[in-house]
Amino acid sequence: MNLTKRTELRRIPDRGAHDWETISQILDAGFLAYVGFCVDGQPFVIPTLYGRDGERLYLHGSAVSRMLRELETGIPTCVTVTLVDGLVLSRSAFDHSMNYRSVVAFGTAQRIADPMQKIKSLRVISEHLIAGRWKDVRGPSEKELKATTVLEFSIEEASSKVRSGPPLDDESDYGLPVWAGVLPLEIKSRPPIPDDKLVEGVTLPDYVRRYDARLNGGAGHSSNG
Amino acid sequence: MNLTKRTELRRIPDRGAHDWETISQILDAGFLAYVGFCVDGQPFVIPTLYGRDGERLYLHGSAVSRMLRELETGIPTCVTVTLVDGLVLSRSAFDHSMNYRSVVAFGTAQRIADPMQKIKSLRVISEHLIAGRWKDVRGPSEKELKATTVLEFSIEEASSKVRSGPPLDDESDYGLPVWAGVLPLEIKSRPPIPDDKLVEGVTLPDYVRRYDARLNGGAGHSSNG
Repeated sequence: MNLTKRTELRRIPDRGAHDWETISQILDAGFLAYVGFCVDGQPFVIPTLYGRDGERLYLHGSAVSRMLRELETGIPTCVTVTLVDGLVLSRSAFDHSMNYRSVVAFGTAQRIADPMQKIKSLRVISEHLIAGRWKDVRGPSEKELKATTVLEFSIEEASSKVRSGPPLDDESDYGLPVWAGVLPLEIKSRPPIPDDKLVEGVTLPDYVRRYDARLNGGAGHSSNG
Repeated sequence: MNLTKRTELRRIPDRGAHDWETISQILDAGFLAYVGFCVDGQPFVIPTLYGRDGERLYLHGSAVSRMLRELETGIPTCVTVTLVDGLVLSRSAFDHSMNYRSVVAFGTAQRIADPMQKIKSLRVISEHLIAGRWKDVRGPSEKELKATTVLEFSIEEASSKVRSGPPLDDESDYGLPVWAGVLPLEIKSRPPIPDDKLVEGVTLPDYVRRYDARLNGGAGHSSNG
């Protein structure tokens, strides 16, 4: 995997990190990827869930999904994941910013044909989103597996960008009587809504009850602001 | 504005909504857009803040930003905004889903040259993110304005997709002793972190204190699950 070329950072080099550890931590903390591809020069950006195994990301969807059908032809693909950590409120309009962690990855995808490999990859996606769930649910039937396309996206290049910490104002603005600071943001769960038709006696699994720990266990979060 | 062509929904027509009211509500509830563009067939997807004025979205950044320099040439551009509302946990792996609201918009961008129009557009972006902030802070200087590029993205086509409500399992799965339901998710703020160098006596503005209302006031949120 190449960590530079297409992802070279132009503007604020100190916000850019290219080490794989940072990149993989951000990819593990996130769960929604924005997948970009071009058809005749027209860009498409589609949000989708993913799972990671080393330098491969797994994407899935309906076998008739336009996006997956385009991607599996092996066209250049961009996968972007961003975690929003907070608003950075400075004393001037110009110096407002956002604390975030972001990865932009380039590569190509290929369809996974082997049914056992498909199931394994679907498990990676499921466990990435909510670890512990897969073992509890009915696995995919042959028919369901046929109706599902699973792609393996190989990361060829990637970069990360991270901003954290307080606002940075111009020296001459520090005397302004304006509130400044960071408003930390995070994704939180609200109380689970049980399905109306639950079998009697079925209880809420721990991995649902404790989902906030998965959401906000990502690297860099505690150092925000 | 055209609400069909490129954004025609193939797979689950009932999840797709093309009315402008839904689209604009989603765009107003979100604040982070994923902007897609192609350079020699290579897709790029970059997260960025935005503001909305009718069928125009305003984007801004450094005058040397590669993305803005590409976009201002008028190349086809895709802007995608997604709000994650919850995990949909069904009894089978196959029927797992996500509650969300999403907009995919196509169009082109142009650079705003007039300084007064630039300031007006920056104000739209600022007020979109955190209404009330603009009047409190020092406005952009001539130098800062020169260092900032502001683009107006005109939406030519757009579509929305929305999923809400409980899981939909196969009839034969309802008897499984598996917890199923929705785990609602939302973005929340944590306590604001005041800057170390605040002028004495400066207090926390209401628009920061009450930011959660802005985050989760979006249409459709209360009907989730």
